[in-house]
Amino acid sequence: MCVPGCMETVTERLSRRSFFKGAGALALAGGGAAAAPVAPARAATQFSQVIDLTHTFSPEFPTFFGIPGIEQETMYTFDEAGFNMKRWSLVEHAATHMDAPIHFSKEAQSAEEVPVDNLVVPLAVIDIREKADGNPDAQVTPDDIKSWEAANGPIPERACVAMNSGWADHVGNPGKFTGKDDDGVFHFPGIHVEAAQYLLEETTAIGLAVDTLSLDHGPSQSFDTHYAWLPTNRWGLENLANLSALPPVGATLVAGTPKVAGATGGPSRLIALV
Amino acid sequence: MCVPGCMETVTERLSRRSFFKGAGALALAGGGAAAAPVAPARAATQFSQVIDLTHTFSPEFPTFFGIPGIEQETMYTFDEAGFNMKRWSLVEHAATHMDAPIHFSKEAQSAEEVPVDNLVVPLAVIDIREKADGNPDAQVTPDDIKSWEAANGPIPERACVAMNSGWADHVGNPGKFTGKDDDGVFHFPGIHVEAAQYLLEETTAIGLAVDTLSLDHGPSQSFDTHYAWLPTNRWGLENLANLSALPPVGATLVAGTPKVAGATGGPSRLIALV
Repeated sequence: MCVPGCMETVTERLSRRSFFKGAGALALAGGGAAAAPVAPARAATQFSQVIDLTHTFSPEFPTFFGIPGIEQETMYTFDEAGFNMKRWSLVEHAATHMDAPIHFSKEAQSAEEVPVDNLVVPLAVIDIREKADGNPDAQVTPDDIKSWEAANGPIPERACVAMNSGWADHVGNPGKFTGKDDDGVFHFPGIHVEAAQYLLEETTAIGLAVDTLSLDHGPSQSFDTHYAWLPTNRWGLENLANLSALPPVGATLVAGTPKVAGATGGPSRLIALV
Repeated sequence: MCVPGCMETVTERLSRRSFFKGAGALALAGGGAAAAPVAPARAATQFSQVIDLTHTFSPEFPTFFGIPGIEQETMYTFDEAGFNMKRWSLVEHAATHMDAPIHFSKEAQSAEEVPVDNLVVPLAVIDIREKADGNPDAQVTPDDIKSWEAANGPIPERACVAMNSGWADHVGNPGKFTGKDDDGVFHFPGIHVEAAQYLLEETTAIGLAVDTLSLDHGPSQSFDTHYAWLPTNRWGLENLANLSALPPVGATLVAGTPKVAGATGGPSRLIALV
């Protein structure tokens, strides 16, 4: 059964889907080439305020893997050598960091292959604090995005879509931040795979960001959002700070992601220009 | 002996010097407080172009210390675990990186204490490629800055002043990039301490940047520029790429420096908005 107009919609959807699949394959084949499926539209080019979206990375920062995300070793001290210098050992996916496309892909862009034009993009901030407050397993759904669009207009071209669940406030309380229960299952908010699919099909978004440990919500065992999003040469950002300081639309993200050869992601300095 | 006007000049210089010493001490006492001695003026707030000033960081990147700047270890692979993830071990002062104030100070801001407002600043690019081409030990002098100002106007408020020596082109040739001679002495361009002092006394610059291994030129054994600049809670950036793609004035630097607790600097993603 199909009401008038339905077939056009179905055709359009299928056409968009094929288009995006084609674009993804093309970008993969191109290695370091730009992955975004549309001609580059610029991020907002004016700003008057600088906001840091980065948490401080220390060995105490809660991690997904339960081991310290970073260890630091003193190499030289001012008193002994006249200068201070350290060595770090870190896991790529800890603290405020990037998931490069290759993180959940057999072959896709590594961190240094993401074109710099894809790192300066409009930010769309979707606020699910209210529902997450009552349910740590809450997820951003297609309806949340549609509500955001009804209030703020279409998701901007080549945007990073960020979930503000309020979880950044819990970073000093690892039990709450990870939500780990007696069975070792995490409980924190994330982005539903259907929301990721909606963004792939209906928008030109190139980044996802969350203020929690993972793009997928805590209980996920299948990481559907990671697998849907990253292999298309789109990137993710996790453990963001200060999203509540941003407007829903109008900020530009400058993502200071690592330009480390072959990296699957890594600690990043995320700065918003508003 | 003092010609007419000389004493006034001396008095003015001393007075400025005291002012800056005071400002430096104040900023140190304030810990993470803003160090710049003037009210924050904004960087250029419009842009239409994004330029990456960052080299790719790999174990092959030439280092000051002669050891690999980074080692990477595979923790998980897509084929075995369904995702890719690595661990890095790195020295803070390798590849395109920040010298935090604490790097050459007994006590000053560590990397994560530098206020985010100090990381989005106007870039003044001083081109010494011609003289460096004939002399790898060339330095940016006060006269170079004065010539730049004669052509481009005063150094912008709270600027990062960057040396473009052309050395970024040599990064694939470690012998040329480091200029290490048979006695182990480096030969590459840098910023003369008198130029740093000129900037401290006559401008509100808060950052220095070079396209070589060190703020001080290669043969330096005393690191005068590091010791003059960093303890005032100003920062440095080393091993920049692509400075030749920038205008002398008009670009805004977004310095994606590491927000790692207690860091003396670290690998950074440097992005210019033009």
